[in-house]
Amino acid sequence: MIYLDNAATSYPKPENVYNAMIDHMKNAGANPGRSGHRLSLEAGRAILKTRELIGTLFNIDNPMQIIFTSNATDSLNLAIKGVLKKGDHVITSTMEHNSVLRPITALEKIGVENTIIQCNAEGVIDPEDIKRAIRSNTKLIALTHGSNVTGTLMPIEAVGRIAKEAGVLFLVDAAQTAGIYEIDVNKLNIDLLGVPGHKGLMGPQGTGILYIREGLDVLHFKEGGTGSKSEELTQPEMLPDRYESGTANTPGIVGLGAGIEFILKEGIEKIRNHEKELTQYFIEALAQIEQVKVYGPKDSEKQGAVISINIGEEDSSEIAFVLDQAFNIAVRSGLHCAPLAHKTIGSFEQGTVRFSIGYFNTKEDIDRAVEAIKEICKEI
Amino acid sequence: MIYLDNAATSYPKPENVYNAMIDHMKNAGANPGRSGHRLSLEAGRAILKTRELIGTLFNIDNPMQIIFTSNATDSLNLAIKGVLKKGDHVITSTMEHNSVLRPITALEKIGVENTIIQCNAEGVIDPEDIKRAIRSNTKLIALTHGSNVTGTLMPIEAVGRIAKEAGVLFLVDAAQTAGIYEIDVNKLNIDLLGVPGHKGLMGPQGTGILYIREGLDVLHFKEGGTGSKSEELTQPEMLPDRYESGTANTPGIVGLGAGIEFILKEGIEKIRNHEKELTQYFIEALAQIEQVKVYGPKDSEKQGAVISINIGEEDSSEIAFVLDQAFNIAVRSGLHCAPLAHKTIGSFEQGTVRFSIGYFNTKEDIDRAVEAIKEICKEI
Repeated sequence: MIYLDNAATSYPKPENVYNAMIDHMKNAGANPGRSGHRLSLEAGRAILKTRELIGTLFNIDNPMQIIFTSNATDSLNLAIKGVLKKGDHVITSTMEHNSVLRPITALEKIGVENTIIQCNAEGVIDPEDIKRAIRSNTKLIALTHGSNVTGTLMPIEAVGRIAKEAGVLFLVDAAQTAGIYEIDVNKLNIDLLGVPGHKGLMGPQGTGILYIREGLDVLHFKEGGTGSKSEELTQPEMLPDRYESGTANTPGIVGLGAGIEFILKEGIEKIRNHEKELTQYFIEALAQIEQVKVYGPKDSEKQGAVISINIGEEDSSEIAFVLDQAFNIAVRSGLHCAPLAHKTIGSFEQGTVRFSIGYFNTKEDIDRAVEAIKEICKEI
Repeated sequence: MIYLDNAATSYPKPENVYNAMIDHMKNAGANPGRSGHRLSLEAGRAILKTRELIGTLFNIDNPMQIIFTSNATDSLNLAIKGVLKKGDHVITSTMEHNSVLRPITALEKIGVENTIIQCNAEGVIDPEDIKRAIRSNTKLIALTHGSNVTGTLMPIEAVGRIAKEAGVLFLVDAAQTAGIYEIDVNKLNIDLLGVPGHKGLMGPQGTGILYIREGLDVLHFKEGGTGSKSEELTQPEMLPDRYESGTANTPGIVGLGAGIEFILKEGIEKIRNHEKELTQYFIEALAQIEQVKVYGPKDSEKQGAVISINIGEEDSSEIAFVLDQAFNIAVRSGLHCAPLAHKTIGSFEQGTVRFSIGYFNTKEDIDRAVEAIKEICKEI
């Protein structure tokens, strides 16, 4: 099986991720932050360790500002609904995932206004369009760092500057870029950063992160046991407890920590360069196949390791099915939960066949994918 | 290490839980319900399998009414906030965990009224008190099945009847009983059932379940990618998608399925009888130690495998610390995130030392605990 669905979840994980999870579950599987016995303390330390590793990766000064969630969708919902109130205005883009678009749409009911900036056919946004959309009641700019459909990299540095100058909060959805691209929350003026644990960070599914800039007031939507201030019937104010009620996904968080350790050890630049090289190689090979339409920038400098294509007018699901059944190649087809992105790039009806490359893919994998696509083109 | 903190999380897990998780992660670690390739389909099947196993365990006719959450707190928040609106009234008890009390308290701000029924000093509730508290605007009764402080079993069958007769919804918090006690949602008239995956169900941390009775309208609080109706910017109405946005905790859910398979194989009665036997044995031994005060019913027919004690006027944390450090026995001390329960049983200042027994504990473990308590009593 050639796995080219890393934008959905990275696979496989580094060996140390599996090992750390099993080791933790077997030898320290207690509840963190509750009881005082040694297993519980060990679980608590393991969680703190992951929090600190995340802090290192994103240059977050205070690891207590890092909230563990169950996935990036969970993070983005908390961020969006936690800061937007009736009468506020939010700016986002047509390249966003439904994990951003659906919460923003849901908030229309309570009187939160939104502007969805139109990106061009390659998924590229003009920061000046964002600047022009800012109103007196604009509270938040929510932008993906890299499209999950075309890989298009967004100018988050420029947008961060615009947000800061305008006194508007800046939320970045780093679902496709965390662990592969440098993200320094201070340098990029990021107030809120939503990240899945199971994609570029190489942790297991069931993990997500929300970074909240210190001093920022974000509502909480879940209350419960936090192991702190147990005598009170109201949620504690201190972070991360305020947003982390109930038993933590300790094995998942331990696995996430192991994933980040792997990344820090390999070096983020090495990971990025490997993925860039394969992306460029793939794009150039695809350019040689007449029936293939490649979406997005078609330039590994301007996109992450996500390449969406179509073959003629063929249904994208059909192509993905053949790639799986006949060639043992795993990709994703359809709309990828980002409908406006497809309207933007012109593939709303057809969807796209999405190849997403991970650190463990090889040049041979790309060769096999190219060969398969050529075979399919011949058959059509 | 003698682990007697199973009310926090069961430990160890059955061997097949570890194996199923690792095997799934290594061999089928893709995203369920998104892509169409074989790994993704296998992940989807694995999740469906767990859903069906849960259906079998709780006699839930339609497994699609089972929602995966990140823990019981997550489930309880969704249930409570999903059905209660301004002007509604909810009835609960003083024996509840903060995962019930805190969300209910938070709802006071939006005009949801509550009545917290006083239980007696053993944590026992009188169903008639609940009946008397029902008003014309009562929408929900939220009750624990078994106290996490005293183990006290609540008369959920009687309360279920009262709720049904009054046309009031019935939410059961089965955090301490699922997997050990028979819970038939139909027979018990349960409309909403909140369950952690990592306690009696023997799955990993990071998993929880909410059962929602078919036809019941529960609000959703998270929107995002569901892999369904991706063309729409609004959340799909169909279950479980409506409540399950973003990537599922597939390894966790697979582990949970393995835990339930273990339970179904052993038989729930065998598990309960083992825990009951050890509980009764422990209670009787504790009754012989003069300085020890045991809370709760002190009768394994009336309580789960949770035994809270204090030794004289000693601080509960101090005793737990000594049990860990000098005797290698893991218990939990303090308020156990249930402050009103301690006010009810008279231990609010001192907290309690909580021993919670699991299926893998032995008579020898209890002997060791009793010996340790005797030693500590001698020293004081």
